[in-house]
Amino acid sequence: MIRLACDYQEGCHPKILQRLVQTNLESTPGYGTDQYCQSAKQKIKKACEAPDAEVFLLIGGTQTNSTVIRSILRPCEGVIAVSSGHINGHEGGAIEMGGHKVLTIEPHDGKMLAADLDRYIVDTLTAPSWDHGVIPAMVYISQATETGSVYTLAEMQAISDVCHRHNMPLFVDGARLGYALTSEGSDMTLADLARLADVFYIGGTKVGALLGEAVVFTNTKLCKNFFTIMKQGGAVLAKGRLLGLQFDTLFTDDLYFEISRHAIAMAMKLKAALKEKGYRFYAESPSNQQFVILENTQLAELEKEVQVSHWCKVDEHHTAVRFCTSWATTEENIDRVISLL
Amino acid sequence: MIRLACDYQEGCHPKILQRLVQTNLESTPGYGTDQYCQSAKQKIKKACEAPDAEVFLLIGGTQTNSTVIRSILRPCEGVIAVSSGHINGHEGGAIEMGGHKVLTIEPHDGKMLAADLDRYIVDTLTAPSWDHGVIPAMVYISQATETGSVYTLAEMQAISDVCHRHNMPLFVDGARLGYALTSEGSDMTLADLARLADVFYIGGTKVGALLGEAVVFTNTKLCKNFFTIMKQGGAVLAKGRLLGLQFDTLFTDDLYFEISRHAIAMAMKLKAALKEKGYRFYAESPSNQQFVILENTQLAELEKEVQVSHWCKVDEHHTAVRFCTSWATTEENIDRVISLL
Amino acid sequence: MIRLACDYQEGCHPKILQRLVQTNLESTPGYGTDQYCQSAKQKIKKACEAPDAEVFLLIGGTQTNSTVIRSILRPCEGVIAVSSGHINGHEGGAIEMGGHKVLTIEPHDGKMLAADLDRYIVDTLTAPSWDHGVIPAMVYISQATETGSVYTLAEMQAISDVCHRHNMPLFVDGARLGYALTSEGSDMTLADLARLADVFYIGGTKVGALLGEAVVFTNTKLCKNFFTIMKQGGAVLAKGRLLGLQFDTLFTDDLYFEISRHAIAMAMKLKAALKEKGYRFYAESPSNQQFVILENTQLAELEKEVQVSHWCKVDEHHTAVRFCTSWATTEENIDRVISLL
Amino acid sequence: MIRLACDYQEGCHPKILQRLVQTNLESTPGYGTDQYCQSAKQKIKKACEAPDAEVFLLIGGTQTNSTVIRSILRPCEGVIAVSSGHINGHEGGAIEMGGHKVLTIEPHDGKMLAADLDRYIVDTLTAPSWDHGVIPAMVYISQATETGSVYTLAEMQAISDVCHRHNMPLFVDGARLGYALTSEGSDMTLADLARLADVFYIGGTKVGALLGEAVVFTNTKLCKNFFTIMKQGGAVLAKGRLLGLQFDTLFTDDLYFEISRHAIAMAMKLKAALKEKGYRFYAESPSNQQFVILENTQLAELEKEVQVSHWCKVDEHHTAVRFCTSWATTEENIDRVISLL
Repeated sequence: MIRLACDYQEGCHPKILQRLVQTNLESTPGYGTDQYCQSAKQKIKKACEAPDAEVFLLIGGTQTNSTVIRSILRPCEGVIAVSSGHINGHEGGAIEMGGHKVLTIEPHDGKMLAADLDRYIVDTLTAPSWDHGVIPAMVYISQATETGSVYTLAEMQAISDVCHRHNMPLFVDGARLGYALTSEGSDMTLADLARLADVFYIGGTKVGALLGEAVVFTNTKLCKNFFTIMKQGGAVLAKGRLLGLQFDTLFTDDLYFEISRHAIAMAMKLKAALKEKGYRFYAESPSNQQFVILENTQLAELEKEVQVSHWCKVDEHHTAVRFCTSWATTEENIDRVISLL
Repeated sequence: MIRLACDYQEGCHPKILQRLVQTNLESTPGYGTDQYCQSAKQKIKKACEAPDAEVFLLIGGTQTNSTVIRSILRPCEGVIAVSSGHINGHEGGAIEMGGHKVLTIEPHDGKMLAADLDRYIVDTLTAPSWDHGVIPAMVYISQATETGSVYTLAEMQAISDVCHRHNMPLFVDGARLGYALTSEGSDMTLADLARLADVFYIGGTKVGALLGEAVVFTNTKLCKNFFTIMKQGGAVLAKGRLLGLQFDTLFTDDLYFEISRHAIAMAMKLKAALKEKGYRFYAESPSNQQFVILENTQLAELEKEVQVSHWCKVDEHHTAVRFCTSWATTEENIDRVISLL
Repeated sequence: MIRLACDYQEGCHPKILQRLVQTNLESTPGYGTDQYCQSAKQKIKKACEAPDAEVFLLIGGTQTNSTVIRSILRPCEGVIAVSSGHINGHEGGAIEMGGHKVLTIEPHDGKMLAADLDRYIVDTLTAPSWDHGVIPAMVYISQATETGSVYTLAEMQAISDVCHRHNMPLFVDGARLGYALTSEGSDMTLADLARLADVFYIGGTKVGALLGEAVVFTNTKLCKNFFTIMKQGGAVLAKGRLLGLQFDTLFTDDLYFEISRHAIAMAMKLKAALKEKGYRFYAESPSNQQFVILENTQLAELEKEVQVSHWCKVDEHHTAVRFCTSWATTEENIDRVISLL
Repeated sequence: MIRLACDYQEGCHPKILQRLVQTNLESTPGYGTDQYCQSAKQKIKKACEAPDAEVFLLIGGTQTNSTVIRSILRPCEGVIAVSSGHINGHEGGAIEMGGHKVLTIEPHDGKMLAADLDRYIVDTLTAPSWDHGVIPAMVYISQATETGSVYTLAEMQAISDVCHRHNMPLFVDGARLGYALTSEGSDMTLADLARLADVFYIGGTKVGALLGEAVVFTNTKLCKNFFTIMKQGGAVLAKGRLLGLQFDTLFTDDLYFEISRHAIAMAMKLKAALKEKGYRFYAESPSNQQFVILENTQLAELEKEVQVSHWCKVDEHHTAVRFCTSWATTEENIDRVISLL
């Protein structure tokens, strides 16, 4: 079975596993105070060109989103996101568990428009009885988005400007950040992101690690007591070095982006071939997720050999499915999928 | 440097690492739906002699405690623990984050006495204006306790009886369960625990795994929607197989208890030698944590070669320190420590 | 100035004030254990034809909504409401403070349609990865709605049927219940409501009291420890008799409905006159709130003498405004408003 | 029956009721935006000699404590209180509902000692792994305390100094503030309190009002969005004027302190008489609560005519009971009680 349903189906990149094997019997202090975590943080700050940033290593995406958001918001404040944002529908109510409402704007191609954001904030804060409602106080976007689209530098600059004009921090979910920054046509660097966001994270789970998300606070006024807030949320690993070793490896010799470029190359090959064959796409994506509309009997046939995600029903006879590539996707498998369609 | 400060200083047991290496490139579905998680759960239920139990694999101890407790308590209800319980002082307020108060009883030798528990419940629920206060609704104990002591079968049976007479679930924190069940003089089995507790967990992080705690609900009325509650709390790994593979290995060929017995043997050797030399102990422990009182200059000397935990100051000139053994502790290191003292 | 902006602008109905004056120096026990609270609860149960119900007296609407909802939902569960529901936009995030998401359906004429509710529940619980999202577990509707519309008996029966088929409690916000049950064309009684809802409340604040909302649990399995949950939420008055005396008075000699009928008569007189004059209405309401579209310069002129609520901007030149009647509205004032328009 | 069990057994001071009657039919805007609330706030700021303070009117004590505390603390932070503090045992877990732990110090005569507080903070923040535990971040004390004792100016100055040296806000629960400031031997004024505390409240419920607590933020950096935080917590009255009218009356012609002095005079008369008769006191109180130890059969006899609070069992044959005086206590009743003992 060829599995392309998601980008977290294999273990970790072999270089990471090799490091784990090499260091397994070393004895290190716990809770992220070991030398591997320190080294990983230094490398990440360097890659971000943000020497004064603070870096924290967490375990998974939902956990990272909820920990960052509840560390920033005060009671009665909410976070603005597009309605398709991961925090709005896929995290079991993690943001609400922290006491906060997700305030939603409609997405365009999966993305938040700066103009929509500005209008939302102004309308909300000037409405009659605005102070009886949840007060918008920070902004959440994903790079890449949940449907694979990617913010351009200009788009994210515009959102950042709106946020800061209204005195709200911008938080960027980078669960698939590697795939965004190496996507087809991307004009944004990690340093750009570090400059525009107040806090963001570099996803490891979906980009070669067993688990792990590296949160970067460039606005360090926001991260007071963040370690203890992580601890409170169950987001600290006793054997923290497991996170340090992985990110240290990913940020050595450009591995994080090398992995990402491979996944993008595989996705673009698939996309080009299917476009060529005349398939319709459910969403236009330059990154590692491709959303293709298939006829249902054809899908059933495909699924004898290939596992994909069912995204949604398009009509009685068609379904949109997701193909995901990753560091582990082989060209051989992509070729086979192309040949099957 | 010999590190005996805690039991989570190395990676994982070599057999686990071997499994990770062997399976690394296999493609499996995410979020714990893979075959390794299923297999691990079956083996755990078998080992517990609890075929109808429900098993869930979480990441770390604080997370597991808070997820289980908030899944059981309703608003205005609290959990009873001894004041030295892990949830009361070492988890950054994780239980309070879930909206609940930790109601405390004084420990005896680190343990809760059944008679104290009964008196606490009766006194609380019959006090004037009892319904203006937090209502006790479940009980939390640790096996082994935070200071290494271990409940006997009779002691835990008595606590379980009190809980059930008052219609409250008993939750047992087993972060160091392996070390408890194989401790010197232990008369309790995993099946006993499964019979007495409504829910408990089998600690992996401190007993040979990289990370992971296996929650067992024998009272399955308590675990409705538990997967989504885990998701909400950021306690679900995308690459869930990492947990499945580890517990599957630990529960193959008795590895979990083999590891534990080794750690206990090392701890008992250290304990016997230091008793023989006339050292005083801060707490009497039959398990893998040993709390020894050292003279401060002697401690400083020891620490040139051995890392231990500073537990507390005993007087101006003495400090209680903790030695922890684990699967990774070598007899050579224990001998060296003995020779240094 | 004639004030018709809302239905909580005066003190309380004179009969209530008279009772407060008469009993002011009496000494009674606190926290709702006095005889007036007991008497009020008996009268309410009688009026509801629900002798086995449990009644609790709370202070205000937002507090009542959040207390009832957090008492019913478990972690990761959400409450379904229409997007215009009071809990979704006007309560400062009170439901989220309790840890829960408000799951929204689009309203029709301010109301939830039973068919939409059924589809929402089925779609949500059968979606791929449904258990990664918030689980719908109860339903909230308002009678009358936020825009003055009123559920017919058949409509609410249909919603109740959907709820119970899916095993979810139905909670009805009755902040303006009196005005709903006496509205033009209403075919529902208090006893009908008690039969259809699992829990609902009878609004006092907007129907003649200084403050107070009477929660009626007909499904008494839902109200375990509800007093303490109220206490935890700051919803218990030390001088609880203030609530008891008011509801006891409101439910003596049909005062609650007499007040309501007066308000409806005033609203219908205004509505008929403005319809006659050709005004457009922003929402069709048979109850005490009337939403009229006014030309902006005309509105400015009116506001020299009459205070109304600005509901929303309709276009560059028109605004929808709300006129609210209550027990305190005089026919003289209504006539004056009619003459001004 | 003479009722002295608590200080919230009657309605309100007649002057307040008179104002309610006089203004009942006036029409005012809602949610505390009326002129009576404005006037009350001005008078309170004047009485506090704190012209730049911000004043908010809430409903009851538990609500006020939880709203203030959750508005100040961030995640993982806790509030320090004595173990007998109201927030620790009598509020149904209201502070925990807001996500925060109550960190306790043992009281001396019901009060927190500045030296204990200092030691607690230093010990907590310098302990090993301090950042794995809840971080103390504000201090709560009650004036008068739960057992009637009263902080002297020097004592509160010392506590305030400790708080500010450690950069923590001091919050003073003044549910019985009037009785504290007019207590026997009191050397503190309202202006002193306003100078020493960052935020405190002036209790109305127990000092002549039907309900109401006036929160005064002298440290106005702490009260951003406080109105909406109140709204979120269900602490805003639609008919907010009910609070404004009461505090406006209480702070006219010194009524608040006049009431308080009367209650103190009654309490001191009772105390002196019982001391004279040789009764033992459970706690030494200079304020309106007197805790007397009675022999059980004598208590049973007394209770045929007088209602008191059972505070606690002293031994098999004795019980400590509480007598509370208030604005409504008559000298005739006090004389009668004295004659019965």
